[in-house]
Amino acid sequence: MEWGKESGRILNEVREKKPLVHHLTNWVTIYDCANVTRAIGALPVMAHAREEVKEMASIAQALVFNIGTLTPAFVQSMLLAGEKANELGIPVILDAVGAGATTLRTKKAKELMESLQFAVIKGNASEAAVLAGLDAKTRGVEASRVEGNLEEVARILSKSSGTTVVITGKEDIVSGAEKTVLVKNGHELMGCFVGTGCMLASVLGAFCGAERDSLKAAVAGTSCFGIAGELAAKKASAPAAYKNEFFDALFRLDAGTVEKMAKVSEV
Amino acid sequence: MEWGKESGRILNEVREKKPLVHHLTNWVTIYDCANVTRAIGALPVMAHAREEVKEMASIAQALVFNIGTLTPAFVQSMLLAGEKANELGIPVILDAVGAGATTLRTKKAKELMESLQFAVIKGNASEAAVLAGLDAKTRGVEASRVEGNLEEVARILSKSSGTTVVITGKEDIVSGAEKTVLVKNGHELMGCFVGTGCMLASVLGAFCGAERDSLKAAVAGTSCFGIAGELAAKKASAPAAYKNEFFDALFRLDAGTVEKMAKVSEV
Amino acid sequence: MEWGKESGRILNEVREKKPLVHHLTNWVTIYDCANVTRAIGALPVMAHAREEVKEMASIAQALVFNIGTLTPAFVQSMLLAGEKANELGIPVILDAVGAGATTLRTKKAKELMESLQFAVIKGNASEAAVLAGLDAKTRGVEASRVEGNLEEVARILSKSSGTTVVITGKEDIVSGAEKTVLVKNGHELMGCFVGTGCMLASVLGAFCGAERDSLKAAVAGTSCFGIAGELAAKKASAPAAYKNEFFDALFRLDAGTVEKMAKVSEV
Repeated sequence: MEWGKESGRILNEVREKKPLVHHLTNWVTIYDCANVTRAIGALPVMAHAREEVKEMASIAQALVFNIGTLTPAFVQSMLLAGEKANELGIPVILDAVGAGATTLRTKKAKELMESLQFAVIKGNASEAAVLAGLDAKTRGVEASRVEGNLEEVARILSKSSGTTVVITGKEDIVSGAEKTVLVKNGHELMGCFVGTGCMLASVLGAFCGAERDSLKAAVAGTSCFGIAGELAAKKASAPAAYKNEFFDALFRLDAGTVEKMAKVSEV
Repeated sequence: MEWGKESGRILNEVREKKPLVHHLTNWVTIYDCANVTRAIGALPVMAHAREEVKEMASIAQALVFNIGTLTPAFVQSMLLAGEKANELGIPVILDAVGAGATTLRTKKAKELMESLQFAVIKGNASEAAVLAGLDAKTRGVEASRVEGNLEEVARILSKSSGTTVVITGKEDIVSGAEKTVLVKNGHELMGCFVGTGCMLASVLGAFCGAERDSLKAAVAGTSCFGIAGELAAKKASAPAAYKNEFFDALFRLDAGTVEKMAKVSEV
Repeated sequence: MEWGKESGRILNEVREKKPLVHHLTNWVTIYDCANVTRAIGALPVMAHAREEVKEMASIAQALVFNIGTLTPAFVQSMLLAGEKANELGIPVILDAVGAGATTLRTKKAKELMESLQFAVIKGNASEAAVLAGLDAKTRGVEASRVEGNLEEVARILSKSSGTTVVITGKEDIVSGAEKTVLVKNGHELMGCFVGTGCMLASVLGAFCGAERDSLKAAVAGTSCFGIAGELAAKKASAPAAYKNEFFDALFRLDAGTVEKMAKVSEV
């Protein structure tokens, strides 16, 4: 697989199809999730009332669930929307923010995984480890160090959930049924502002809305996201300026640049 | 009417009176709605608890309702606040985000219109068409193409609701009891970031809080907003940089520039 | 006390200890509160579900409560989290946004003060006056002019609540059991965007999470915040550009600059 070329192709698909990405997400980064969805070329909609989530889900091309400020009622809306999406074959992305930090987050993330079929499950190292059934703790929404091999964690979680798994970190790991892929794009400045992970989930939603192969979509989305991070680092080095450059780099990103800059390898 | 001169005068009124604009709005763009209210020279306050909305409404000079992430309970708070505002003669603006996308949004927007007297109702083409009783669909929060003449849609909705109507689009249409006005200010880059429409509603709140003639206030607000968009486009061409320039252009906008740049015509 | 040197030392402690600051805050400025927490060198987490607030609070180094968009249920979560924090000796900061604007805000702020021991209570002039039992009104979330001496208001509130009090304004007043301190850092442009006060509360959370003496922590946090505001004013003069510079100035701020620029005096 020429991953760079394929990722560029999928980016073009996102811009052409402009998938509507229905989010049930947290109240902290909700604006940036919407904005990043538009910056990459898709269309965001946020709706969480149980009275409308099924109807909104049914006109979307992808759903993104993020449990960053979850309540039991909010997760109930996710279940309603997710069931409708599963029924209609619309891909659903789970961002398991803070799984492993509190009992509620771990429990609700697992409940969602048991009830729904996800296209992609995303988390940082300790969130993924917890969902894979390993012993780990998350510090609020920050990854804690996980014992053992993260690629193996990704494989275990992918196998147990039957889905594509993305573990974010210094290197991002994307693992599906048949293969595990490393994405080495990105820049450490991406961690200097809040919500980078949430925004990646929105981008994964956009890519899954344009490409049905969730492994390819996840690799392409993760790689494009990281490349934008590298491009932004050439222009700014402090959080606010960097975040602006990052959004604008995503907006301007083109397939040729993706093909040239992608650092994707199968393991 | 010298619309440009009049719009500049009303902008000065906003800066002088600093109206307090009480928002019951969505969780996506809430910060930018508050921030744009301050950038144009007014003061924002956000409060939605049913226990306090009547009291907060009663000290405000304008209210802005936005159903972008509505729930039935939230609309209930809007009804309480709106009744108090109607009682006290405080203008209320309705931004019918997503009407026509789900049954809940259409139903609740109509319920608000039946229960309250609005100073301005704002929507994109398909939202307005739905509220005017025409057959249309909204794609999430994105306008869909509407059959027929939008000026006619604005007139129908204005007549049936007895209020000033603003339909946003490439050209903005403002329609009141006696006349319909086209505002041709604005720039396509205003659509490259999320929430432009919500922010316009906040600006309309600020202008209605300073000028009792809702048609004049709506024309002035819409025109000033579009002019800031044009000025920003001279300085930036990607979403994050553009949005920053747009806010700062609103902040710096003066009456003389408005008079010179306003593109307003009666039809 | 060499306040500048001490403030620089505490800033270094924040960067080294990276305290986790658990917020129960408003939906308007929640992202910026999280982001400013990270910019200054600490880690934010936002969680409000009553099912998890006690557990989240127990892994935090400080809590920040902000009643800017309060509901009774939300305040209930604050009480649960606050009791756990008090039990474990974790400092809790109260930002009494809008106390004096509505009965609900005044009542709930007082209820929180009666039920919990705060490390710092922060408000603008009229919010603080109301909490001190004086006659004052708040205009939405904007300070109204308060009759009499603000230093005296701070002392009364500090004495009645047994805590450190911060009153923000042209000059910031920090008052504790033994002394009252004036912080004259800051710039008027800090008021040109929304949420400056909320963000200061987050910074106070970060500083209280790194330094147990709440008076020292409050002086240091307030001073560093104001210095960043002064540095940003050298680079920008309109809201969006200024806010970006302000965040980046906080991110880049070092102890040497703080020592040199701090304008702190005991009264």
